[in-house]
Amino acid sequence: MTTRFGYLGPEGTFTSMALDAWPAAGDGAERVAFGSVGAALSALRAGDVDGAMVPIENSVEGGVSATLDALASGDPLVVTGEVLVPVRFVLAARGGVSLADVRAVGTHSHAWAQVRGWMATHLPEAVYVPTLSTASAAETLGAVHEGRAGAVDQAGAGSPQFDAAVCAPAAASLHGLSTLAEGIGDMQSAVTRFVLVARPGAMPAPTGADKTTVVLYQREDHAGGLLELLEQFAARGINMTRLESRPTKESMGAYCFSVDVEGHVLDERLGEALMGLKRICAEVRFLGSYPRADRQPATVGPRASDADFAAAREWIQGLRAGGA
Amino acid sequence: MTTRFGYLGPEGTFTSMALDAWPAAGDGAERVAFGSVGAALSALRAGDVDGAMVPIENSVEGGVSATLDALASGDPLVVTGEVLVPVRFVLAARGGVSLADVRAVGTHSHAWAQVRGWMATHLPEAVYVPTLSTASAAETLGAVHEGRAGAVDQAGAGSPQFDAAVCAPAAASLHGLSTLAEGIGDMQSAVTRFVLVARPGAMPAPTGADKTTVVLYQREDHAGGLLELLEQFAARGINMTRLESRPTKESMGAYCFSVDVEGHVLDERLGEALMGLKRICAEVRFLGSYPRADRQPATVGPRASDADFAAAREWIQGLRAGGA
Amino acid sequence: MTTRFGYLGPEGTFTSMALDAWPAAGDGAERVAFGSVGAALSALRAGDVDGAMVPIENSVEGGVSATLDALASGDPLVVTGEVLVPVRFVLAARGGVSLADVRAVGTHSHAWAQVRGWMATHLPEAVYVPTLSTASAAETLGAVHEGRAGAVDQAGAGSPQFDAAVCAPAAASLHGLSTLAEGIGDMQSAVTRFVLVARPGAMPAPTGADKTTVVLYQREDHAGGLLELLEQFAARGINMTRLESRPTKESMGAYCFSVDVEGHVLDERLGEALMGLKRICAEVRFLGSYPRADRQPATVGPRASDADFAAAREWIQGLRAGGA
Amino acid sequence: MTTRFGYLGPEGTFTSMALDAWPAAGDGAERVAFGSVGAALSALRAGDVDGAMVPIENSVEGGVSATLDALASGDPLVVTGEVLVPVRFVLAARGGVSLADVRAVGTHSHAWAQVRGWMATHLPEAVYVPTLSTASAAETLGAVHEGRAGAVDQAGAGSPQFDAAVCAPAAASLHGLSTLAEGIGDMQSAVTRFVLVARPGAMPAPTGADKTTVVLYQREDHAGGLLELLEQFAARGINMTRLESRPTKESMGAYCFSVDVEGHVLDERLGEALMGLKRICAEVRFLGSYPRADRQPATVGPRASDADFAAAREWIQGLRAGGA
Repeated sequence: MTTRFGYLGPEGTFTSMALDAWPAAGDGAERVAFGSVGAALSALRAGDVDGAMVPIENSVEGGVSATLDALASGDPLVVTGEVLVPVRFVLAARGGVSLADVRAVGTHSHAWAQVRGWMATHLPEAVYVPTLSTASAAETLGAVHEGRAGAVDQAGAGSPQFDAAVCAPAAASLHGLSTLAEGIGDMQSAVTRFVLVARPGAMPAPTGADKTTVVLYQREDHAGGLLELLEQFAARGINMTRLESRPTKESMGAYCFSVDVEGHVLDERLGEALMGLKRICAEVRFLGSYPRADRQPATVGPRASDADFAAAREWIQGLRAGGA
Repeated sequence: MTTRFGYLGPEGTFTSMALDAWPAAGDGAERVAFGSVGAALSALRAGDVDGAMVPIENSVEGGVSATLDALASGDPLVVTGEVLVPVRFVLAARGGVSLADVRAVGTHSHAWAQVRGWMATHLPEAVYVPTLSTASAAETLGAVHEGRAGAVDQAGAGSPQFDAAVCAPAAASLHGLSTLAEGIGDMQSAVTRFVLVARPGAMPAPTGADKTTVVLYQREDHAGGLLELLEQFAARGINMTRLESRPTKESMGAYCFSVDVEGHVLDERLGEALMGLKRICAEVRFLGSYPRADRQPATVGPRASDADFAAAREWIQGLRAGGA
Repeated sequence: MTTRFGYLGPEGTFTSMALDAWPAAGDGAERVAFGSVGAALSALRAGDVDGAMVPIENSVEGGVSATLDALASGDPLVVTGEVLVPVRFVLAARGGVSLADVRAVGTHSHAWAQVRGWMATHLPEAVYVPTLSTASAAETLGAVHEGRAGAVDQAGAGSPQFDAAVCAPAAASLHGLSTLAEGIGDMQSAVTRFVLVARPGAMPAPTGADKTTVVLYQREDHAGGLLELLEQFAARGINMTRLESRPTKESMGAYCFSVDVEGHVLDERLGEALMGLKRICAEVRFLGSYPRADRQPATVGPRASDADFAAAREWIQGLRAGGA
Repeated sequence: MTTRFGYLGPEGTFTSMALDAWPAAGDGAERVAFGSVGAALSALRAGDVDGAMVPIENSVEGGVSATLDALASGDPLVVTGEVLVPVRFVLAARGGVSLADVRAVGTHSHAWAQVRGWMATHLPEAVYVPTLSTASAAETLGAVHEGRAGAVDQAGAGSPQFDAAVCAPAAASLHGLSTLAEGIGDMQSAVTRFVLVARPGAMPAPTGADKTTVVLYQREDHAGGLLELLEQFAARGINMTRLESRPTKESMGAYCFSVDVEGHVLDERLGEALMGLKRICAEVRFLGSYPRADRQPATVGPRASDADFAAAREWIQGLRAGGA
């Protein structure tokens, strides 16, 4: 049976590039584009696809709210891997359009935020037109170029309301656009992290270079707060690599914490820390243990290896049996 | 001289409603709409306006990245007050358009995220068209209605690409639109917090019900990390009400922390905690002390009042003078 | 076979009173007096006695160094129970001796420290003569009274160098002395805590009102120090009831910590905390889990019961099996 | 006017050796021996002496309870300096007495505890006779030797009840005794720390290599306990070198903490930490800031120097004046 992978489409998005880099999504697998992260994850929950590639964190813009929130509620899903994609923007237009002709620029609002510096210098008069994705901006221009009917952005009919698109180089090529400028991102080293999400089941085996993602909900009667949650990791020598506070949507100031830590749930130290959090939190939502994209071995606090835990457990068992 | 207040416009946005609620922006003050948070704050830095009202946190969507980032870098600005605005969405259209006629809906992406549940139930086939703000979606429809030329969205010419707008009730009224549905937000109690930002200078006096906002940058050689930063507040009995991690934009995983705590920089406990953070952080950016919108007195840890600090300081001074 | 209990003798010491209160030391058991705590514990290690009653903590003088140190090194021993004995001192003398006749007072140095206030008021001129125990002071006077040879203190021959003894009421009776004054302790509510020590083996079952005693040796390379050790207890909701720092005898400033906490090594929270300490300490010496003398149920941090741990473990096992 | 120094006498004690090493107690100063630490400190409080040298900590036996307690209550006194004295024990006897003749050994109980190993090997049959000090044991033997009347221990008349004394080499010489064995301490590197105590007033100036001693009393309603006290030091980068728990004498389990930390009360970080403790403790008793005997510069946490504090204070003052 063919494995089906959903992703935040259309083709040409950075997410589609992340899926290109996912080995299991290669030969023989089917790719299904969705118009939003939520739609891709809903299809995954419904069993329409077997995995979904979605953005989770951008080195410039931070966490991707739609993904964090869609993972934090609803039927359980788990991350089984991650992919890092360098974010390279181009300004693309139909053939014959020069930079001087550009009066309006279409792109996704996150992309627009990352090219503002360049725009202020090179196209200070250009009007910004939001689109659903960087790739859809390119697609809109490309469709017009090719004279296709009914493909002028998802929004409907008529000529596009912009002359140029900010998108990935691949999207420009895909839609037959010319590149007016390359490398127009304000931060040349920008990177987006994507995760491959699946329904719970087979878990990637520990590799020694793993990450684990959880969402922590505090108890209302819980005075110590975030400090106490972080101490559960610290007491077991566990290093945290990402912390996002996200509103629980119930009232202003009610937050949960989306956290990445180094290590695998099968590691002793992580199992014990999660047990501690399970006890003191209102809820702990486990979002998977998976190999790091950069293959960098986990930082482990002194004497917090599995062997250290095993030695300590053996000692306690001896004491409990009446030894000393 | 007339005081000038910038805000995230156009008229009819939730931000314009926040400005309506700001006493000093009443009679005799001038209001200047900007197309983005960044533009409003740039004008403030340049001295073109004297204050700027911008959104900083939404009870459903979380922190407003554009505002957090614009405050965290560039010339110093400080928050001098906050306003809470309940977020009430309506679906608005030109007269004669009924719900059954709606094929495309325009609004800002944050608003769209907050009405998805309602849309899935009542307009499952409707296409989403992103706009620059909720008010600009209403304005676009209204302009067409009134037959005005050149006002069809900021993006250019032609008929609008959507039949209905998700916006505030005030925006619908302002632009002469009919209301197709009210209270369509998925979270009925959603609230957005706005802040009035100014250039450093006169600081609001302590009221006993104040907040202070800072951005904390960790040192690279700083192992203890976030835990150690939070302990600086805890050791002085200070309560934290918001924590956002924001990428420093330099590399994946390099974060700073945007933090709100209860209290005023003129309070002893807060002065001492900020001194502690100043010492251990690479940078502490002070973003103002200002009265809480809800006038709720600060939670103060036991024995952390100004009187407690004064008594302790008097004691130390006695010791240093040779007493015991 | 007869069970043999060693104790810090001779008869009439507060330790002998503690042994009186120990049920298993009643009918059919044999009592063996030793001249020092060290001698009693050595006999226990050698198998000459089956248990030893020794003082460990006094509400006025603090920890009993000889006991703490003898337990902390050498072959392992464990505490299997504790007894609290109110410390009531009398001033006793041979018949015919009145208060006005007393020129020198014999007693153990710890007892002397606890009656100084009374002495300063009632016998300001009296000279202090140290003896090996409070009971031996009484015995010395009694032996003279009875004309027995060779019983004049352990030290040798001749007339005693004091006219009155500070001792327990029982010791005065035992040796036929008159009581010149009662209740002469400066702290009327003084209490000494005694422990019944045994070789490792059968451990008292958990009662819900237990204590556990451990000695913690820090690693030399261990910067966090005591704070980090205490956090291992705090992270599992464990309450500490005694902390004594004791020199490791290797160099000035090298300390280990003798600690009592509430709970039993068979309690989940304590097992996990001890494992944590085992990992980060150079050595953890387990000195037993035993019922509290006062039968007061253990204070347990919120959500740190065995049931809480069991629920958390079940959850982790589910996750590890591929659940979420 | 002659400066008078009290000390724990008689001549020949280790305390008298510590006083020998105190420069100000040299030429022209008067030395006054006292029979106990308490007597010496009472005389100091009464103004009968200007300073008192007393033992506070031994590398083998730990804290000296009598000193810790006498400093912790009563009229305030402060430590103004410290002296380290290596503890070298000899076995001394009258001329003509050989090791084989020794049947009973007199010494202070703390000294006896430190020579037990040697005694078990070389004089396993010897009886122990407690004396008021190591020097008084030597004095007793010496007096007999010299045929002086009335000098046979403080306790009264008659022949001494022991044949040999464990004491400092100086005490043996002083009293004309022969040395039967040298270096008989079980720990060859044993050291005792003495402190020079004075009434509050002139404080030693900071040297960069200072210690500060305080006694901390917890509030009864104070859940966090010791952990919270230690965090006040940790939050300011202060290193602790000694922690002794001492009973407050009110009830079993009620403790205060006697603490030495590195630094001077005139150091910014220490002033701030003491202020924090003053706020959260029921009482903080300051026992002085004084130069370390070993002249080792204080370990200061990163960015906790006076310059770091001054920079942070200047920054806060700028903020409070309306800067940012």
